[in-house]
Amino acid sequence: MATIFSKIIKGEIPCHKIAEDDKHIAFLDINPLVIGHTLVVPKREVDYYFDLEDEELAGLNAFAKRVATAVFREIPCLRIGTAVIGLEVPHVHMHLVPLNQMSDIDFGKEKLKPSQEQLKAIADRIRKVFI
Amino acid sequence: MATIFSKIIKGEIPCHKIAEDDKHIAFLDINPLVIGHTLVVPKREVDYYFDLEDEELAGLNAFAKRVATAVFREIPCLRIGTAVIGLEVPHVHMHLVPLNQMSDIDFGKEKLKPSQEQLKAIADRIRKVFI
Repeated sequence: MATIFSKIIKGEIPCHKIAEDDKHIAFLDINPLVIGHTLVVPKREVDYYFDLEDEELAGLNAFAKRVATAVFREIPCLRIGTAVIGLEVPHVHMHLVPLNQMSDIDFGKEKLKPSQEQLKAIADRIRKVFI
Repeated sequence: MATIFSKIIKGEIPCHKIAEDDKHIAFLDINPLVIGHTLVVPKREVDYYFDLEDEELAGLNAFAKRVATAVFREIPCLRIGTAVIGLEVPHVHMHLVPLNQMSDIDFGKEKLKPSQEQLKAIADRIRKVFI
């Protein structure tokens, strides 16, 4: 069965897209830990990060670096943290989390609930500086 | 000034080593979130993950995959989660965290305090299955 991320990749479910190439897509987490929290996803539906081939790990991280650079330009923070957990959606997704303090990447805390308009505005800003 | 990780790499500070190659080292976190929590570090002293060159990200992740595979063989868990935060030690380090539940990778929770003997025994087990 297609994961929710595969449905997003196919355009069957909308997302607030930041960037896309032939093998990857990046979009805002709709329940972010902090503003600018972004997910980077390989289009190939693989459950576990370390089941990716070495070259897929390389491609995903090179793409994530470009996304993180754009997020960092637009969202005030000290740096972009990363995490790959994957206990919920069985399709690899790297979290990119703008960090000002350690607790910003605490996945146990209550998530933010930005409106669709707020998410769109944030995605528009980040997408414009993606290179 | 050399980071604590550069001192570990040079052998000036001991560690419970899991694996090493010419560009990377992996050792147990001495204040682990869970048993088996391992750090993977590039020998080149770079502060920020996304300041690594694309080929360095590729090499680090390929090495981390080998380490994660060994940790997964020895530590009962659902999968190995990853995180790169970096607000404390200014030298890239990827956390590999054996996950049985989301809270296992909550960096705000109280850390475990295993004895040196316990850490040595865990490192010995993981090192033996590293390939």
